[in-house]
Amino acid sequence: MTNDALVIFTPSGKRGRFARGTPVLTAARQLGVDLDSVCGGRGICSKCQITPSYGEFPKHGVTVAEGALSDWNAVEERYDRVRGLKSGRRLGCQATVQGDVVIDVPPESQVHRQVVRKAASARPIQMDPATRPFYVEVEEPDMHEPTGDLERIKRALAAQWDIPAIKADVAVLASLQPVLRKGGWKTTLALHKPHDAEVPRLVALWPGLHEGGVFGLAIDLGSTTIAAHLTNLETGQVVASSGIMNPQIRFGEDLMSRVSYAMMNPGGSLEMTRAVREALDALAAEIAREAQIDPALILELVFVCNPVMHHLLLGIDPVELGQAPFALATSDSVSLSARELGLASLPATAQVYVLPCIAGHVGADAAAVALSEEPGKREELSLVVDVGTNAEILLGNTTRVLACSSPTGPAFEGAQISSGQRAAPGAIEAIRIDPETKEPRFRVIGCELWSNEPGFAEATAATGITGICGSGIIEAVAEMRIAGLLDRSGLIGSAEQTGTERCQAEGRTHAYLVHDGSAEGGPRITVTQGDIRAIQLAKSALYAGARLLMDEMGVDKVDRVVLAGAFGAHISPLHAMVLGMIPDVPLDQVTSAGNAAGTGARIALCNVGARAEVERLVRQITKVETAIEPRFQEHFVAANAIPHASDPFPELSQLVQLPDVSFNAGGDRQGGRRRRR
Amino acid sequence: MTNDALVIFTPSGKRGRFARGTPVLTAARQLGVDLDSVCGGRGICSKCQITPSYGEFPKHGVTVAEGALSDWNAVEERYDRVRGLKSGRRLGCQATVQGDVVIDVPPESQVHRQVVRKAASARPIQMDPATRPFYVEVEEPDMHEPTGDLERIKRALAAQWDIPAIKADVAVLASLQPVLRKGGWKTTLALHKPHDAEVPRLVALWPGLHEGGVFGLAIDLGSTTIAAHLTNLETGQVVASSGIMNPQIRFGEDLMSRVSYAMMNPGGSLEMTRAVREALDALAAEIAREAQIDPALILELVFVCNPVMHHLLLGIDPVELGQAPFALATSDSVSLSARELGLASLPATAQVYVLPCIAGHVGADAAAVALSEEPGKREELSLVVDVGTNAEILLGNTTRVLACSSPTGPAFEGAQISSGQRAAPGAIEAIRIDPETKEPRFRVIGCELWSNEPGFAEATAATGITGICGSGIIEAVAEMRIAGLLDRSGLIGSAEQTGTERCQAEGRTHAYLVHDGSAEGGPRITVTQGDIRAIQLAKSALYAGARLLMDEMGVDKVDRVVLAGAFGAHISPLHAMVLGMIPDVPLDQVTSAGNAAGTGARIALCNVGARAEVERLVRQITKVETAIEPRFQEHFVAANAIPHASDPFPELSQLVQLPDVSFNAGGDRQGGRRRRR
Repeated sequence: MTNDALVIFTPSGKRGRFARGTPVLTAARQLGVDLDSVCGGRGICSKCQITPSYGEFPKHGVTVAEGALSDWNAVEERYDRVRGLKSGRRLGCQATVQGDVVIDVPPESQVHRQVVRKAASARPIQMDPATRPFYVEVEEPDMHEPTGDLERIKRALAAQWDIPAIKADVAVLASLQPVLRKGGWKTTLALHKPHDAEVPRLVALWPGLHEGGVFGLAIDLGSTTIAAHLTNLETGQVVASSGIMNPQIRFGEDLMSRVSYAMMNPGGSLEMTRAVREALDALAAEIAREAQIDPALILELVFVCNPVMHHLLLGIDPVELGQAPFALATSDSVSLSARELGLASLPATAQVYVLPCIAGHVGADAAAVALSEEPGKREELSLVVDVGTNAEILLGNTTRVLACSSPTGPAFEGAQISSGQRAAPGAIEAIRIDPETKEPRFRVIGCELWSNEPGFAEATAATGITGICGSGIIEAVAEMRIAGLLDRSGLIGSAEQTGTERCQAEGRTHAYLVHDGSAEGGPRITVTQGDIRAIQLAKSALYAGARLLMDEMGVDKVDRVVLAGAFGAHISPLHAMVLGMIPDVPLDQVTSAGNAAGTGARIALCNVGARAEVERLVRQITKVETAIEPRFQEHFVAANAIPHASDPFPELSQLVQLPDVSFNAGGDRQGGRRRRR
Repeated sequence: MTNDALVIFTPSGKRGRFARGTPVLTAARQLGVDLDSVCGGRGICSKCQITPSYGEFPKHGVTVAEGALSDWNAVEERYDRVRGLKSGRRLGCQATVQGDVVIDVPPESQVHRQVVRKAASARPIQMDPATRPFYVEVEEPDMHEPTGDLERIKRALAAQWDIPAIKADVAVLASLQPVLRKGGWKTTLALHKPHDAEVPRLVALWPGLHEGGVFGLAIDLGSTTIAAHLTNLETGQVVASSGIMNPQIRFGEDLMSRVSYAMMNPGGSLEMTRAVREALDALAAEIAREAQIDPALILELVFVCNPVMHHLLLGIDPVELGQAPFALATSDSVSLSARELGLASLPATAQVYVLPCIAGHVGADAAAVALSEEPGKREELSLVVDVGTNAEILLGNTTRVLACSSPTGPAFEGAQISSGQRAAPGAIEAIRIDPETKEPRFRVIGCELWSNEPGFAEATAATGITGICGSGIIEAVAEMRIAGLLDRSGLIGSAEQTGTERCQAEGRTHAYLVHDGSAEGGPRITVTQGDIRAIQLAKSALYAGARLLMDEMGVDKVDRVVLAGAFGAHISPLHAMVLGMIPDVPLDQVTSAGNAAGTGARIALCNVGARAEVERLVRQITKVETAIEPRFQEHFVAANAIPHASDPFPELSQLVQLPDVSFNAGGDRQGGRRRRR
């Protein structure tokens, strides 16, 4: 019998021979096995739990006998007594190798564990946070060796963790001495190591072993809403999500009106910066309270946002983004501290990372979508559309990725629609029109029933039926086209032409009555000719952007479409295609990615390598500027029809027959050629 | 005739052959000659002025003919017309080499020019600032190539200055776009490159060529006073100096009473931090106003201070410095930004460097003295004494440097002395007592005359004679000893014993009347037995510290003594030796270094390499802790006599005979054994 033993780790398959008596954690480290430890092998953090397997392993060519690991020692016994150790588990730093053994590292013991995402198509997020806790035991000061406490911490990190150098934020210096003394010269240090720096930064410390976790905020800073996900940086778990309205709305609904506000009002830009920072500060405090977490444990923030929000967040006047050539102050990622953003409810040392922008109109939000959806990693040609007030559009495959932004306006979000409203209880989110009777049925948010099903009235009594949200208006327009209430050019027919009294004259045009609640004091919900025009403008802009990228790519069809954005998740692919929002593809190739920008923020928060990756991605993406591209105008005009006239729709025509009607006798005086920027 | 020419630069002596037509600046750069340029050779900054020499240069083996440089070109002519070019000067970027030539680089054209210091013994300060201006011409943005303005600045720096990467502070991002556009895509960038980082930081930028200079503040942050020197970082010139009282005095006169204040009052430490930061902010604004310089041009601050002030400046509770083992939060240098210190009158991006501390009682001020006086660079053994409320003492030569701090208390500064006062007009600063008549004559600050000279009364009528300052009390005590009014133990004799009515009974002891202004409503100025005891305590502490270092060094004499500190400059070496403040050395080996700590701050401000040097120095200095060293107590007790009893004074005895008197008949009930910490 030789004195060393074969150790095989699963699931990595890494193997090596070690002297009997070697702790499992030591063996794992020497083999580069991903086994966590915060306390550095002192048997107090319990992060290095492993499960030995016994029996025959023909695949590995090894038989593991009882006694392949040392017996439980006092540390493990105490740990089990006090905290409880799952059956079969051992502490990797205490159990030593006594014979050939197969050792499983469960996911929760891996530093680089994977966090599964909801969308089935999406790769899991691999944990590799920039900020990690390290437990150290520090020498006490000695009058004969007058080093500072920080210098002894550095010495401990070098000796106990092989970290040769750190920098310390001055805000941390203030807590250094009381924390060290409170912890009896044992402390847990939070070190932040950015992807683009060699030396980690000491951003927080706690007495003794800190078990309260370390957290980060992934923030999707939109023009209209701000969404934040409070994430445990050790497990990747989202412990709370919260959203608020962007208070800048009072300075202008859309981005360009905010840029105008900055242009017209001295100090207006700073005013908007202050407003958004105050809101972020309040949001951070609120989400921590909600998750019952000390805000002092929030040590990282990652932001994704469009270029205007990016500049306003960073205190940069966005005026240049309102005029050609739409120059960003900086397109690279920006790293700073919570102190520099004036986020008083968070530690001054909390590290902030803002994803890079792609171009003056294609922001860090689009970069985040690219990071989340990875069109550049698929052979098939993907069109990724993030629908919002501005649509970010990505088109690409492994050969190339293109990006542009298209000014769709707020119609898709229910704004500038006569009966439009935000997605909230009471809003019509889905609608079907019987092609025979031309009668509508619909569903409202907050109720699973259709309006023609029994119990609908009772179920919606509390909320009422208040308007139509973004996904509802898309379905309404598409269903009106399917039912023959709307012709290819977007004109609503008269009662005579359509054969339904629901098509009522309104001035020189017509409107379709979806629901009349006026008897109960509720609103009359109609789809007007103006609403159709607004949706036509929006979908033309969206489609023209996609089409421009397809031209640039030299293709006239795509393999798959990903609808992203909070709103994207609720769009019916069939109706989007009837409308001509997206090119013709097999319906099963249209997927929803949910809030892909927000997911990109979470990925960059949980995996520091993803920051380098998104910076690389952004450099590789070809930006197409819609504002100066004459073909954009051409595509925009050609896309006005429903569906647009420029492409055949073989996939769509297998699913639904669109009636060939024309209502051009009535005057369409509004025209459909306006452009919105 | 070959096509290339010999170019010799003076004073460096660097030489090389260059193709005819090569600009002088290009030749200088290729040879590594220290020739300044901010505009990178565009003929607009005029920093690269040189003087060609003509005629025979046997030493260099070359004859320079007329026409060795190209004729004046249009750029030089315009520059001369608009700004004026000194006779004989050329612009190095415009003049090209046409034949063998000797070219002198005048001091003001050298980046690393030397700044001469006042003290004859001191090496000049070599300019090598961390913050330097760079002029660049930046590409305009282009919609087809959507890079940010910052990214194009980076590209310009790489192409025009060979600087591959920079980081930009978020505060700079806000001014980037308007500045670039105002300057027509020409800008001067201030880059800060610390000694311990590879990548410089963009800390300010101006439109076009910035000619307003770049400035820094060297700040000596004392317990009692704060002194600042506003320094031009290109020339090294001190453009304004200003001092204010440290407002922390209201929390405690000396350091230990401030530590007590922090201990006794919750939030007391932060209160003191706020007070000193507010004072610094006001001082910075005031000194800029005085020098008529925009505070936005102050881009660097260097601080020297004792450990307690160091902690209070950085917002660290100094409580640990009040109790053994006197652990510093950090002993290393600290780098931060003006934003982190809350200095609102300076740019948020201004970079702050705080020199390292040597030990819990030996601060960054002592480190600065070591940097300024360089005891470790001399063969002779130097004793450097920085006299203040705490005395910092350095002893060393090329083999070794030792340091300690000794709690002398405020007596040397005129505090705790019955007629003591700060050095201000009206204070007695020098005194002589006739050994025969025992009559005093004295000089007061603000008047060159001695009190027995004609016109003295008139000359001092405005200020009056108000008290005795630090240097005055030292001379008074020493002169009383020389005149036989004081015995070796420090007792003042009675009128009978001394033969002068000026020795008057005061309780059970005696006092010597220096001046009686009571007839004119002024004070009676006396030196009391209590004053003598206070001075004895102070000088014993000082001497005991020096002696402790000498023990550690294994020597019983030193070769030279340097008196540093604002007060050190005014101490008479003879009287200091009579008193026994310093060991016996030849009088011509006692020099004054003025405010050596402040000078050290200036050196670190002007020369970034000096920061690495002082950090190295501090690591090499052996710290001796007086508080735990039993021999300190022994030396302290033995040093009570005037002069102290422990050493022979051969040098002193050649200069002055000290009378062998004893007044021990009267009771000295006060004792001389008290210790002050």
